[in-house]
Amino acid sequence: MQYPEPIAKLIDSYTKLPGIGIKTATRLAFYTIDMQEEDVTHFAQSLISAKRDLKFCSICGNLTEEDPCSICQDETRDPSVVLVVEEVKDLMALENTNEFRGRYHVLHGVLSPLAGKGPDDINIDTLVQRLQKNEEIQEVIVGTNANAEGEATAMYLSRLLKPAGIKVSRLATGLAVGSDIDYADEITLIKSVEGRTQM
Amino acid sequence: MQYPEPIAKLIDSYTKLPGIGIKTATRLAFYTIDMQEEDVTHFAQSLISAKRDLKFCSICGNLTEEDPCSICQDETRDPSVVLVVEEVKDLMALENTNEFRGRYHVLHGVLSPLAGKGPDDINIDTLVQRLQKNEEIQEVIVGTNANAEGEATAMYLSRLLKPAGIKVSRLATGLAVGSDIDYADEITLIKSVEGRTQM
Repeated sequence: MQYPEPIAKLIDSYTKLPGIGIKTATRLAFYTIDMQEEDVTHFAQSLISAKRDLKFCSICGNLTEEDPCSICQDETRDPSVVLVVEEVKDLMALENTNEFRGRYHVLHGVLSPLAGKGPDDINIDTLVQRLQKNEEIQEVIVGTNANAEGEATAMYLSRLLKPAGIKVSRLATGLAVGSDIDYADEITLIKSVEGRTQM
Repeated sequence: MQYPEPIAKLIDSYTKLPGIGIKTATRLAFYTIDMQEEDVTHFAQSLISAKRDLKFCSICGNLTEEDPCSICQDETRDPSVVLVVEEVKDLMALENTNEFRGRYHVLHGVLSPLAGKGPDDINIDTLVQRLQKNEEIQEVIVGTNANAEGEATAMYLSRLLKPAGIKVSRLATGLAVGSDIDYADEITLIKSVEGRTQM
């Protein structure tokens, strides 16, 4: 016996999500049937709305309902510093600290020769154009992830932008706050010694 | 900064699913935005359809688009045997073996004093009514899970139905096919000795 078609289709949709196999999808589908009708309707509407109502900011690449995004429109933010991140999630994480008051640029990816991703596949050209058009920008902080691909992208951006007279910096690497030294990996320890700060 | 409202709502919807916390929900929401528009639309439609188009069979409690369900309508199936399961998922698992050719009855739960679930909270009265109305039924196979609650429910059904002259049996417990004896738990081993079959 096959599942009734509405369930089979729902299971199929759930399996399209990352990290969700057939067993979990089946569990989620049966759970959905037991949910409040209102919650299911909201869920369906929010799926459609997230896909339809959001676009990427034409300036920085942030996800937004209106273009340009609220950060690019915010006149109180420092226009001289641009923090470059890989994904919108990274921008959100940094914004949630309420500390950085400059602007952002979202690459929507990272240089990855193994995955066949070169400079033309991520939002680097829009960053270069932005720097050319906007002479206020004096510093680019590279906030790509602290892994091999993120470092390679940072290095690439540094070599690309420095000759144009722009100050390029990188988010600090070192011990995570609250972490124990004996649990830190060796490279993090080396970086934390190299990047030590004066007290 | 908050997430744009469409994302925040979608994250909220995902967190309502079992086993999905805020981190996974955020990952799924961003993944959804990158999905093909067609897939997202299908997903939303299948959510609505699974909730709206499915009902429980008025005879056996199976999930179905038409009432009675295809199993209850199938005249080629043996009407004298009813296999009682806890959930529709269990029915589906048994059906997928293509072996059992009787009918089913879905309890939609299990007796669980700790969770405050008594005989009135699960589909036992409909089973009793079905047995009273339908004199063809000669055997009830109890296919509740092989755990404490499933065993208690099996015991309860056995005591309830046997006095009415109905043969009540229980799915066999023992070694799972393909399993190693030294990995089996003690109770399973005891059950497998008790329930040994002649060769």
